[in-house]
Amino acid sequence: MQKLLINLKKLSVGQFILSHTFITQEVGFLKKIINNPMNFVSETLEGIILAHGDQLQFVKEDRNGLVRADARTSDKVAIVTGGGSGHLPVFLGYVGKGLADGVAVGNVFTSPSADTIYNVAKELNGENGLLFLYGNYFGDGMNFDVAAEMLEEDDIYVESVRVSDDVASAPRSDWKKRRGVAGIFFAYKITGAFSETSQPLKEVKRIAEKTAENLATMGVALSSCTLPASGEPNFQIGENEMEIGMGIHGEPGIFRAPLRTANEITTEILDRLMADLSLHKDDEVAVLVNGSGSTPLEELYIVAREVHHYLEKQTIGIYKTYVGEYATSLDMAGCSITLLKLDDELKLYLDAEADSPFFKQIGRSK
Amino acid sequence: MQKLLINLKKLSVGQFILSHTFITQEVGFLKKIINNPMNFVSETLEGIILAHGDQLQFVKEDRNGLVRADARTSDKVAIVTGGGSGHLPVFLGYVGKGLADGVAVGNVFTSPSADTIYNVAKELNGENGLLFLYGNYFGDGMNFDVAAEMLEEDDIYVESVRVSDDVASAPRSDWKKRRGVAGIFFAYKITGAFSETSQPLKEVKRIAEKTAENLATMGVALSSCTLPASGEPNFQIGENEMEIGMGIHGEPGIFRAPLRTANEITTEILDRLMADLSLHKDDEVAVLVNGSGSTPLEELYIVAREVHHYLEKQTIGIYKTYVGEYATSLDMAGCSITLLKLDDELKLYLDAEADSPFFKQIGRSK
Repeated sequence: MQKLLINLKKLSVGQFILSHTFITQEVGFLKKIINNPMNFVSETLEGIILAHGDQLQFVKEDRNGLVRADARTSDKVAIVTGGGSGHLPVFLGYVGKGLADGVAVGNVFTSPSADTIYNVAKELNGENGLLFLYGNYFGDGMNFDVAAEMLEEDDIYVESVRVSDDVASAPRSDWKKRRGVAGIFFAYKITGAFSETSQPLKEVKRIAEKTAENLATMGVALSSCTLPASGEPNFQIGENEMEIGMGIHGEPGIFRAPLRTANEITTEILDRLMADLSLHKDDEVAVLVNGSGSTPLEELYIVAREVHHYLEKQTIGIYKTYVGEYATSLDMAGCSITLLKLDDELKLYLDAEADSPFFKQIGRSK
Repeated sequence: MQKLLINLKKLSVGQFILSHTFITQEVGFLKKIINNPMNFVSETLEGIILAHGDQLQFVKEDRNGLVRADARTSDKVAIVTGGGSGHLPVFLGYVGKGLADGVAVGNVFTSPSADTIYNVAKELNGENGLLFLYGNYFGDGMNFDVAAEMLEEDDIYVESVRVSDDVASAPRSDWKKRRGVAGIFFAYKITGAFSETSQPLKEVKRIAEKTAENLATMGVALSSCTLPASGEPNFQIGENEMEIGMGIHGEPGIFRAPLRTANEITTEILDRLMADLSLHKDDEVAVLVNGSGSTPLEELYIVAREVHHYLEKQTIGIYKTYVGEYATSLDMAGCSITLLKLDDELKLYLDAEADSPFFKQIGRSK
């Protein structure tokens, strides 16, 4: 321990920034593999296009907008999403076959501009209208609404569905005020598969809303993450603490406590999700155990194990389980659990094929 | 900084273990979402089977062995792999259609037992023989060899191919002595797809060896990882240091230096991989940019961007790029770059469909 104390005393903040080593929390340093932090987003996006140019491409003259390389809107509603960077695979990872058609990308943890949303929508618009499908945050809502107004002046009609699945942020009676978190994956999966079947905008909006309403997510954070531009942690958390219900940008959760076991954390979260969705014996759900960034996949499966044991005891059926990093917060340690209450219609589109560079599912019929 | 020093002085090792908070390196603490550390592997495996029982199942009476739920060996060679835990998706993540057929799982960073390898092989063996395909480590080699001898006593014939792609660990002239690292993904992908076409064992071995010979990987480590059982870091690295060439268990690399930019690290690695594979103008490669565990996907794409720029300058063609966590070391920060030199045969099987819970690829023909 002595060596640590001596090393720390020698350091100044300037040294960290020079060496690309940043303080992440009171007692942790993480390092980033980056170039100029100001180019973090533009270089990430360029890397994605270079790696996956067969599936994704930049919008003409706006390198904050991406669309499917095979986008076809002549016979389907186009789904446009967007949000801040730092959450890969959310949001742009869900642009592809059976998912969304285009995405407007903001800076780290920052809403995309109304102009970029407009540019993406203009590039995609066919004769069948547009659905804006995104997570419920104030800045995103404002900019998507401004873009919708701009599009209406061009006689393009837009419907919007905001995903608001974070149970910690508002009660069920006010569920549309909740923050949008990892559950948006299910909204992309189901709405995207549904829209591939050439349904009208009104129907596409209906299934997106139905999915959103049947979602419930809660997370646990064990560490903050480091913002590339500032090199600073986005919140403080003690070295043996966890926060249940914390949002993906460090928004306050329900309570802080000394870190508990995986089983205790899982029970704590599932008690709330079960109540929130009013789940009863023999209901069926899809499960997502999502990693926040630096929590190993092994630990996520230890959580998935307890999710199965818990729901089995309650005789809730698990139709499908997804485990992995679906919506992250840079290098934050932690995870979230999402339940989606299913019916036959939702199952049908959950099972359909999807193909983006970040999420692939082989269709059931195969 | 003052608060940090005070907090550290208050802590003792006992406190960390009690609270599931472990020291990871001189100046870093990470926390784990686990139950009893002794059950880390068994609970991870149980979680995987509960989540993906439609695709994977335990070997009868050996819960350290997993096989494909749809394993068919009557008309194909069975591919058996194995290795230590803590590297997900390696190794068990590559058991599925178009990949391996079964896996023997060891404890964290520890070889699987010869008995488990034998049990997996016995469960899979059809009339067409077995290929053992695994990473080149002493303990793994010893136990796979013992299992092969046990199988020969049962009149089951086994061929073995060890993947040894870590350029930092031996010169090209001694490439079979290298450690096996993330490049094994390509060996699974290509050998698995090839074996689906009902080729004889001799041919399956040939394509596995051809893939292995054309692989070159080098990594960079920025932090150590925390072993769940001991709660201790597996090596020490300074708070502003990186180690180029470090192995996935902390084996020594080529040099340590203050952390450089993403572009500098990429160039440092690619200079060595280019020379190692004797790549020339107009050669074609597949690229894997692999994250070690806690490095965000955004940073991996910043590396992928520079890989594309570098190889374009050298007029090396990039046939396909994979970016993500393909072989990890728990929560280690860092990444590796793998190049696979391609010909038409390797491309054909690289493009084929694959479907495991951890890696999916939609076939090209679709």
